[in-house]
Amino acid sequence: MTEGAAPRPDAPIGVFDSGVGGLTVLAALRARLPGECFLYLGDTARLPYGTKSGETVARYALQATDVLVARGVKALVVACNTASSVALPAITARHPGLPVTGVVEPGAQAACEATRRGHVAVLATEGTIRGGAYQRAIARLRPETRVEGVACPMFVALAEEGWNEGSIAEAVARRYLDPLFGATGGSPPPPDVLVLGCTHFPLLLAPIRAAIGAGVRIVDSAATTAATVEDQLTRDGMLASRGTAPGSRFLATDGRDRFARVGSAFLGVQIDPADVELVDLPAPPAAPAGEARPQAGRA
Amino acid sequence: MTEGAAPRPDAPIGVFDSGVGGLTVLAALRARLPGECFLYLGDTARLPYGTKSGETVARYALQATDVLVARGVKALVVACNTASSVALPAITARHPGLPVTGVVEPGAQAACEATRRGHVAVLATEGTIRGGAYQRAIARLRPETRVEGVACPMFVALAEEGWNEGSIAEAVARRYLDPLFGATGGSPPPPDVLVLGCTHFPLLLAPIRAAIGAGVRIVDSAATTAATVEDQLTRDGMLASRGTAPGSRFLATDGRDRFARVGSAFLGVQIDPADVELVDLPAPPAAPAGEARPQAGRA
Repeated sequence: MTEGAAPRPDAPIGVFDSGVGGLTVLAALRARLPGECFLYLGDTARLPYGTKSGETVARYALQATDVLVARGVKALVVACNTASSVALPAITARHPGLPVTGVVEPGAQAACEATRRGHVAVLATEGTIRGGAYQRAIARLRPETRVEGVACPMFVALAEEGWNEGSIAEAVARRYLDPLFGATGGSPPPPDVLVLGCTHFPLLLAPIRAAIGAGVRIVDSAATTAATVEDQLTRDGMLASRGTAPGSRFLATDGRDRFARVGSAFLGVQIDPADVELVDLPAPPAAPAGEARPQAGRA
Repeated sequence: MTEGAAPRPDAPIGVFDSGVGGLTVLAALRARLPGECFLYLGDTARLPYGTKSGETVARYALQATDVLVARGVKALVVACNTASSVALPAITARHPGLPVTGVVEPGAQAACEATRRGHVAVLATEGTIRGGAYQRAIARLRPETRVEGVACPMFVALAEEGWNEGSIAEAVARRYLDPLFGATGGSPPPPDVLVLGCTHFPLLLAPIRAAIGAGVRIVDSAATTAATVEDQLTRDGMLASRGTAPGSRFLATDGRDRFARVGSAFLGVQIDPADVELVDLPAPPAAPAGEARPQAGRA
């Protein structure tokens, strides 16, 4: 990848997600780093990533990173749990000078610090749970921890539909969480920490809390990720100078109006469709090894 | 588009969908045309189409059609409501010799024949409702008909999760349908025909029926589409000969295992992952006019 001159402290921070979910991470970054510029890219043409294979997600993430690097970002936040699970090594290999922060590692770290019993539940998409990135990250940090992954794809649909509260959201939360948290006095006791391992899930905090009760600590990796990014920029001497005009710009690969409408709920601030730029992603790098192409069979 | 020799009657019928939903249409085709071969392509890497812009969906549909035409299909069924709404003219322009059948026109025709009061409800994805294809098709066939479109994106998530029955599916159905069907003795009376305008929705027949009551006729365009395809092949003298070995082959752009697992429920027959071939779609044709690329703004 050809890159221009090294970015300066006044350059924007790139934030990448499969769609609008990462705007919850952008909201945490804006709160923590109010003097910075952000350039957010949502790959809305190809969402969701959570049900796609790791090879495909990694290829998409490289394309998105190329666009942000070409626009001179000084750091990259991969605000998508699925992409954080599978694409960080490929991104770092392609852009060795770029500080890259995913959401999995900070979330795993916060969970390990929060758990007393060493028993953690991770709620995420099918792809994140199947990929096992949270399980591996937690095992690295605190090997004796017991981790239970729960794939909750309906939470994504509820958040996109704006059905964040009420009887349907509560019934869905109970259906996913009762098997882990519903038993009282069971053995072993339920997890004492729950990680929201998908950027959509903070919107469903109320029904999730109602399903698990007051005694369980909920870790949202957005805040921890923002702290990690601040540490990294401080270490590198790359915090924005006082002269920088802070703010956020938005890129999407499809559906400007929908991005603005649904995204406003995720960011917590109204987004004007005119502030969303449509972009095409470049041709994909060659497919990584392992994508076998077997012959079609008959059924 | 370069094409080889004209297909023969023993060539397969191509069926295209954004994912596994179109397998409900394939099931209807297999039941109606048991002597035929089918080649099904699910664009699982880029689903869902229902939330994407018309230009993007049309471009994806052309790429998928190119793959099926290159494999020698004798006819094409666009089993995706969203693609049927926006892509048929582009497909026909690119492949003038190919008989192409969408699911919207047959569904609209069945609705017009079934309604007594001239009042029809269409349930579909956001994209299909916003595009207005059912509304236009019904207005063409029976202009005085009143059509109400209801976007039901949560139905797609429920069907993919396999939550086709029970209290959550029923509550979601009531939430979408009560505003139209819940009022008793209201004025005007509710629609007397309901069109399932998304291939996922036949799986949710039970909760939909529970929400609307027994007096409303439900039109599933899969069966009507299969009848339309049979008529077309008969007219063209292109029905498979007795020597054809019938059966179905499956192509997917991502996630062989998930295609087989989730798809089996939609087809009503077990699909072996080994019977699903992964394919890459070719480079997209040039973007159609109208995809403006405004500059990014600031928020």
